[in-house]
Amino acid sequence: MMSNILVIIGGDAAGMTAASKVRREQPDRKIIVFEKSAHTSYSACGIPYFISQIVETYQELIVRTPEEFRTQYNIDVRTMHKALEVDTAKKRVRVLDKTAQLELWQDYDQLMIATGGKAFCPDVSEYPQVGVFGISTLKSGIKLEAYLEEYRPRTAVIIGGGYIGLEMAEALLIRGLSVSLINRSGQVMNTLDTDMGELVSEAMRKLGVTLYLNEEFVNFESENNKLKAVVTNKRTITTDIVVLGMGITPNTGFLKGSGISLAKKGAIMVDDRMQTNIADVYAAGDCIEVLNMVSGQHMHIALGTVANKTGLVAGTNLAGGNASFPGVVGTAVCKVCTYEVARTGLQEKDLDKLKIDYVSTKIESKTRAGYYPGSKGITVKLIAEKGTGRLLGGQIIGEEDAAKRVDVLAAALTHNLTLQNIIDLDLSYAPPFSLVWDPVQAAARKLIDQV
Amino acid sequence: MMSNILVIIGGDAAGMTAASKVRREQPDRKIIVFEKSAHTSYSACGIPYFISQIVETYQELIVRTPEEFRTQYNIDVRTMHKALEVDTAKKRVRVLDKTAQLELWQDYDQLMIATGGKAFCPDVSEYPQVGVFGISTLKSGIKLEAYLEEYRPRTAVIIGGGYIGLEMAEALLIRGLSVSLINRSGQVMNTLDTDMGELVSEAMRKLGVTLYLNEEFVNFESENNKLKAVVTNKRTITTDIVVLGMGITPNTGFLKGSGISLAKKGAIMVDDRMQTNIADVYAAGDCIEVLNMVSGQHMHIALGTVANKTGLVAGTNLAGGNASFPGVVGTAVCKVCTYEVARTGLQEKDLDKLKIDYVSTKIESKTRAGYYPGSKGITVKLIAEKGTGRLLGGQIIGEEDAAKRVDVLAAALTHNLTLQNIIDLDLSYAPPFSLVWDPVQAAARKLIDQV
Repeated sequence: MMSNILVIIGGDAAGMTAASKVRREQPDRKIIVFEKSAHTSYSACGIPYFISQIVETYQELIVRTPEEFRTQYNIDVRTMHKALEVDTAKKRVRVLDKTAQLELWQDYDQLMIATGGKAFCPDVSEYPQVGVFGISTLKSGIKLEAYLEEYRPRTAVIIGGGYIGLEMAEALLIRGLSVSLINRSGQVMNTLDTDMGELVSEAMRKLGVTLYLNEEFVNFESENNKLKAVVTNKRTITTDIVVLGMGITPNTGFLKGSGISLAKKGAIMVDDRMQTNIADVYAAGDCIEVLNMVSGQHMHIALGTVANKTGLVAGTNLAGGNASFPGVVGTAVCKVCTYEVARTGLQEKDLDKLKIDYVSTKIESKTRAGYYPGSKGITVKLIAEKGTGRLLGGQIIGEEDAAKRVDVLAAALTHNLTLQNIIDLDLSYAPPFSLVWDPVQAAARKLIDQV
Repeated sequence: MMSNILVIIGGDAAGMTAASKVRREQPDRKIIVFEKSAHTSYSACGIPYFISQIVETYQELIVRTPEEFRTQYNIDVRTMHKALEVDTAKKRVRVLDKTAQLELWQDYDQLMIATGGKAFCPDVSEYPQVGVFGISTLKSGIKLEAYLEEYRPRTAVIIGGGYIGLEMAEALLIRGLSVSLINRSGQVMNTLDTDMGELVSEAMRKLGVTLYLNEEFVNFESENNKLKAVVTNKRTITTDIVVLGMGITPNTGFLKGSGISLAKKGAIMVDDRMQTNIADVYAAGDCIEVLNMVSGQHMHIALGTVANKTGLVAGTNLAGGNASFPGVVGTAVCKVCTYEVARTGLQEKDLDKLKIDYVSTKIESKTRAGYYPGSKGITVKLIAEKGTGRLLGGQIIGEEDAAKRVDVLAAALTHNLTLQNIIDLDLSYAPPFSLVWDPVQAAARKLIDQV
């Protein structure tokens, strides 16, 4: 018999995609969404552009408001409601109504967990109340933007050199702050190989960011609970604000004792239908682990694309359909001022760990015919399996019209294409768009001789 | 035993790619290239941008000069030599040395034909010597540019609405001419479906091009051998110049009686190793037919990408290697001022002819997140096989960052991906580059319900 009440915890990309899908398939189903903030369905990826004021109001980042979901979709969205506990035996959720400061139990027939993630907060002795910002929710973005507007800080230190760190560096540069960035490894963008990461480090320096690489964050210094400086293992950096870019932690603390299986770092383990190990409990988005199809291993990856796709799969199955999510290949893209960085697949250090024998090469090419105005440099690195020539990974750095070329490599990885297959692809060419041999094909042509 | 003398007829993309490949593999091989013009290895695709003066000198279009091939590659390039006849029985070629006005016979052990194509010239009673221009070789481009510079024509009529016609329309608009375009069918870009072609027609009109659609070219009018007007089946259009964009005809007239098999429209028939039906005779580039992997039929297609790829395959095999060219999927891309047009695969009229049951849909989307500056409209049309959902074709029109997205569809077509496979692809997303569901995935999501 069809379950009756669907409870969804978390009202952003994954949760609301699922809710909308269920509503389309089951017009009369009772759907309750608990969302701890005041907002639903917003573009978390857009927050850096709101911080930089490229996007003028945070409302522009909102796809659909709680009110719209209630009135147009008949979805019972309860904002300012935070889930505290899941009782899978009795099929109920304990929730805090933050406005009324009341706790309640809500029964469910099916449950979906889409609580996303939060910026990883280091566990240090001196954690000031004012001046340290983590960017994960719209609320956290609004808070930082308001602070910039009101207190006009002049200096910022970003801890962490991943894509959030880089995008926030851009945002704060645009806002006129002097920006430093601390990263534990010798480069920014650890998801790139060293040689490619160094190119990004150089680009960041050119943009005016002071990089402290091979340097570990140790503690904050503060006065009256207000941030004064960041202490690393090498120095103390005086700064007005800090932005945390040390990764995203799944919001799954409230699942302790629920019996729902979590992976090592707290991400929920699901099968390809987004089902957890507990009957009638599904999960999707930034709080789950997904399969990396290239490595065959599961990984936690906080990305809007994955949240939407897994949300759609969960929603389809919750509505009695049959959808599955094959997994990711590790595609990510990031823009920092004039630079574009993209990656997909495995990187050399992954392959070393997996003991897969590989070859790799890097080429410099152009985004358009050399004679065509606006042709910019592009660096493409490809990694392929030794012997078979199967593509294992690709990384791209350029200034314009560069990054999106990674999509062909993502398709190639998903369907096990070899370098020869890539060379043979009938990719589009005209002088304003590419070279006769697209840069990704030029890289494949160079690498194939090493296979 | 390894053949000794390699003769190549034609010194542009396919011919010189093959020559260079053979030289790399066989440093001592005797390689003779007969080229009827004064130029080798230039970007024919770049000619419109030389006409528009976006590219200042024609030399910028030249990748390598005959002199460079002679001195750096030890390739015996003989420019101003036109092949007149191939005697496959005696393995020799009759050639006209245009400078000396002498004919000679050249023996070969292996022969490669890479004579490309020329603009189709209508066979009409009144063909003026001055004022009608076909664009295929660098020489023809130089001639038109010189004419524009010297005589400052004010009006141009382009006959034909394919990509050469559109690119030449752009070039002449930039040069300040008043441009009209005649096309036999009801739209420009017949390689697009009617609904998409109409969007391009609209765009052309917005740019200021007068379109005469559903109209047939009949004849020229001239005075003292100088063009005065173009006559169609509906009107007479007074004009200073005409540019022919009625297609490219393979330069294979000289093969009559050689025994080399030609297809209906004169393109050379080759196997996937670029071998003709005659032993030791290969061909590549704009003068051959290639396999369309989606339709399973052979077609003549004049594109730089195909010329380079087939030239490389021919060169590899001529040097004793073993390469094959799997075919094309019909990818093409074209820019006209601010508009980008791309297509791949089959179009609806192809499928009707092939009696393949299909579904299709068209969506409007954005190239970047809606809130991100510079986000432009993009229209994506997808066609898929009814029942299986296998992709059969894709067409894209947009204003910026639109066209190159066709590459993912080209990869999908080559490897028989379904709409679900496309939806599942791990394509890159960040607000400056795309939407969470890339427009091609959004189109696949819409179409999958019709399958």
